[in-house]
Amino acid sequence: MSNETISTQLRHRTIREFTTEDVSDDILDTIYDVAMQTASSRGLQHCGIIRVTDPALRDRLTEIGRQEYVRRAPVYLLFIVDAARNATILREHGRDEAAAARTQVFVEGFTDACLMAQNVVVAAESLGLGANYLGNIHNDTAGVIEALNLPKLTFPVVGMTLGWPNQDPQLKPRMPKHFRVMENGYQQQENWTEALAEYDAEMTTYYDLRDANRRVDSFTNQVLGRLTTDHDPHDESLQVARAQGFDI
Amino acid sequence: MSNETISTQLRHRTIREFTTEDVSDDILDTIYDVAMQTASSRGLQHCGIIRVTDPALRDRLTEIGRQEYVRRAPVYLLFIVDAARNATILREHGRDEAAAARTQVFVEGFTDACLMAQNVVVAAESLGLGANYLGNIHNDTAGVIEALNLPKLTFPVVGMTLGWPNQDPQLKPRMPKHFRVMENGYQQQENWTEALAEYDAEMTTYYDLRDANRRVDSFTNQVLGRLTTDHDPHDESLQVARAQGFDI
Repeated sequence: MSNETISTQLRHRTIREFTTEDVSDDILDTIYDVAMQTASSRGLQHCGIIRVTDPALRDRLTEIGRQEYVRRAPVYLLFIVDAARNATILREHGRDEAAAARTQVFVEGFTDACLMAQNVVVAAESLGLGANYLGNIHNDTAGVIEALNLPKLTFPVVGMTLGWPNQDPQLKPRMPKHFRVMENGYQQQENWTEALAEYDAEMTTYYDLRDANRRVDSFTNQVLGRLTTDHDPHDESLQVARAQGFDI
Repeated sequence: MSNETISTQLRHRTIREFTTEDVSDDILDTIYDVAMQTASSRGLQHCGIIRVTDPALRDRLTEIGRQEYVRRAPVYLLFIVDAARNATILREHGRDEAAAARTQVFVEGFTDACLMAQNVVVAAESLGLGANYLGNIHNDTAGVIEALNLPKLTFPVVGMTLGWPNQDPQLKPRMPKHFRVMENGYQQQENWTEALAEYDAEMTTYYDLRDANRRVDSFTNQVLGRLTTDHDPHDESLQVARAQGFDI
């Protein structure tokens, strides 16, 4: 059971290094059309895209993301919650703007921005482009807001770089789907480390091109290494949403 | 600039009514494979899918969603944040589980669940299936958690029904993309109601099949009607995330 679309999706890999070739306006226009056609909660269209072309802003975003390759990517898109437009519409009609600041709006806008981002990734990959999600904007969410001068009732959700691939990474192994697709409730394992032993072994056969000279660690060791209780500025991202005026 | 994938994406419409034909296990398997291959924040795979087949649970979810057609759909998928697995792995290795309860994990898991959902929608639509997102699970997020007995450090993000379309709705008009795709910062309009006048007129030519006998309201009137300060249980969804153990 496959087709062109599904083959594209099953070949998904993060692409971090791109050729210097530009992505044409024609292609970007198509990608934006796809973005617009994405499902939108209650049809309210409270999310959007900010393309960042200004070199100084790209430098600032690279600094925040702490990923040097972000600077070199031909296209940088930031997906945002945008409740500011609908708040303005409310005000223009003498209504209370607070209705656009509610948790429901934030959750919907955040969800919709993510759906839009993934729709863009699939469209881009179907054209041969590579994509890289940038969750690292939340290293300093407030810094991103300040750099791009984002108004109240907007919020950065996820960044993305696009371009023509200049690398050909392996497919990254995923844990078996029966661990992540459940039926009628949550299926616990008696011991997750044991249940994932085979997957752990498979993961160590994978080479991450960010450090191509060594194999990566097992999945469970990645969990131990990446999930720590050290202070992390990511943890302030929802406080920043409150500072942006969302009543969450 | 188009191809099969992009044509599928540009034809996206919400499908609420399905034929009684089942979706085969072969197709669902393919869809789950696509879901697994979706990008995952830091590779931590802290999101998942719960397929709901139990009729009593479907009834309960229909009641929460207040959309009768949800009961009739052949396939119901709930996308969840799943930090419980990685918390267990931490515990199995004598680490502090609190590291899996952080805001960063919640934001990443929520983002990843949405990316996965949209990847599923595109795969399903490429096979001729129709899909309907169900944000209405957040009418009673705690009720969904209780019905499915979801453990601590999991959280329902968005529901979805899938099936073979039994309706052929119009494409729903979107606002022009230059209002939603911006460059290097946020572009305000002096007056959004005026800026959207043409789109408002276009929207009123659209017939929503939920009430096929009358045209829908203009976009700005939809904003006024749907965004109100009335109490809405959606607003409690992030409190429910806290009750699920997330330190957000």
